[in-house]
Amino acid sequence: MFESLIRTIPDYPKAGIQFRDITTLLQDKQGFSAAIDRLSKQFEQHTFDKIVAMEARGFIMGAALAVKLGIGFVPARKPGKLPWATVSQAYTLEYGIDTLEMHEDAIKPGESILLVDDLIATGGTALAVVTLVRQLGGVLEQAAFVIDLPELGGMQQLANAGVQGFALCQF
Amino acid sequence: MFESLIRTIPDYPKAGIQFRDITTLLQDKQGFSAAIDRLSKQFEQHTFDKIVAMEARGFIMGAALAVKLGIGFVPARKPGKLPWATVSQAYTLEYGIDTLEMHEDAIKPGESILLVDDLIATGGTALAVVTLVRQLGGVLEQAAFVIDLPELGGMQQLANAGVQGFALCQF
Repeated sequence: MFESLIRTIPDYPKAGIQFRDITTLLQDKQGFSAAIDRLSKQFEQHTFDKIVAMEARGFIMGAALAVKLGIGFVPARKPGKLPWATVSQAYTLEYGIDTLEMHEDAIKPGESILLVDDLIATGGTALAVVTLVRQLGGVLEQAAFVIDLPELGGMQQLANAGVQGFALCQF
Repeated sequence: MFESLIRTIPDYPKAGIQFRDITTLLQDKQGFSAAIDRLSKQFEQHTFDKIVAMEARGFIMGAALAVKLGIGFVPARKPGKLPWATVSQAYTLEYGIDTLEMHEDAIKPGESILLVDDLIATGGTALAVVTLVRQLGGVLEQAAFVIDLPELGGMQQLANAGVQGFALCQF
C-alpha cells in the first residue's frame, strides 16, 4: 500500500534517475500513521534505547517512530550543524565524499540503537552511521527504511556489517 | 522541567551567543515523550489537518507531533531540496536573506495547519512559512515551539500576523 502513496518524479535530479518522493506519503494522515504503525509493529519484539536518524528526511520518520516506541532520538547531521563535541565519519557518494557527525554524548556504551532513514540505496550513508554508533559503544543490529532500492545492494552491505534491514516498500 | 534538559553552549556559533541545544532533550526518552505529550495536550481543543515544520530541527518535533495527533506532515525546506513544483518565500536573517520552499500540492485550500519549529527568535522564519501556507489557501492560526527567546519578539510578530504561538519553555 505504501508504494501507491509515494510519488515518482522522472529524470530528477538528473536524466535517468527516478526520484521517489515521500512527501505525498507524509502529508496523507492515514498513510503517515500507517507507516509508523507498521515500523512499530516490525520491532515490537525488540527493546531499543534510542533511534539514530540521518539529516534531513530521516529525521521525519525517525522522530515519529521514536515517540511511538517511547525511546530517545539522536540526529546524525551534516558537518558543522551540531553545536557540541562530535565524532565524524566520511562516506563515499557517487561523486566525491560526504561526512556525518554525531554528538559524543549521544549514545552511552551498551545502548541498543535502531537506525532509521527514508531510503536505502548503496548503503554508504547507513554504514557511516553504523560506524559512528559503534565508535560510541552502541549496539546497532537493526535498521528501518521507508524505501529500499534493492538493485543498489544497500541491504546486503548492511547485512555484511551485521545489521538486519527492513523497508516498507521496494522500487 | 524542559529547560533542565536543554544544554546551553556559550559563545556558539559566535561570541556572545548562548546556543540552546535540544539534542539533550531529544535523546532523553522521558523528556522527548513528555515534550510531545505536552504539545499534544496544548492543542487537544483544535482539529488540524496537517503540521508544517521547518528543515531540519523542526522536522523532529513536527513529525513526532503529527503522528501523535494523527495528522499529515508537510516539510518546509531550503531551496532546491524539494523535487516537485514549489512555492517559495524569502526572509531576512541577521545578515542577508534566506528562502524556504513548500510543494504546491502540500496543502489544499481550507485545510487547518499547525506550524511547528524547535525555536522562535525574531520570527522571520515562522512568518515566511505563514506566508507560504496562506498562499496555498491553508488556515494557519496556531504555532508551537520548544523554545521561545522572548527578548527577540518573535511571538509578538506572529500575533501581529494573526498566529497564536506556544512554547514549552523560554530563555
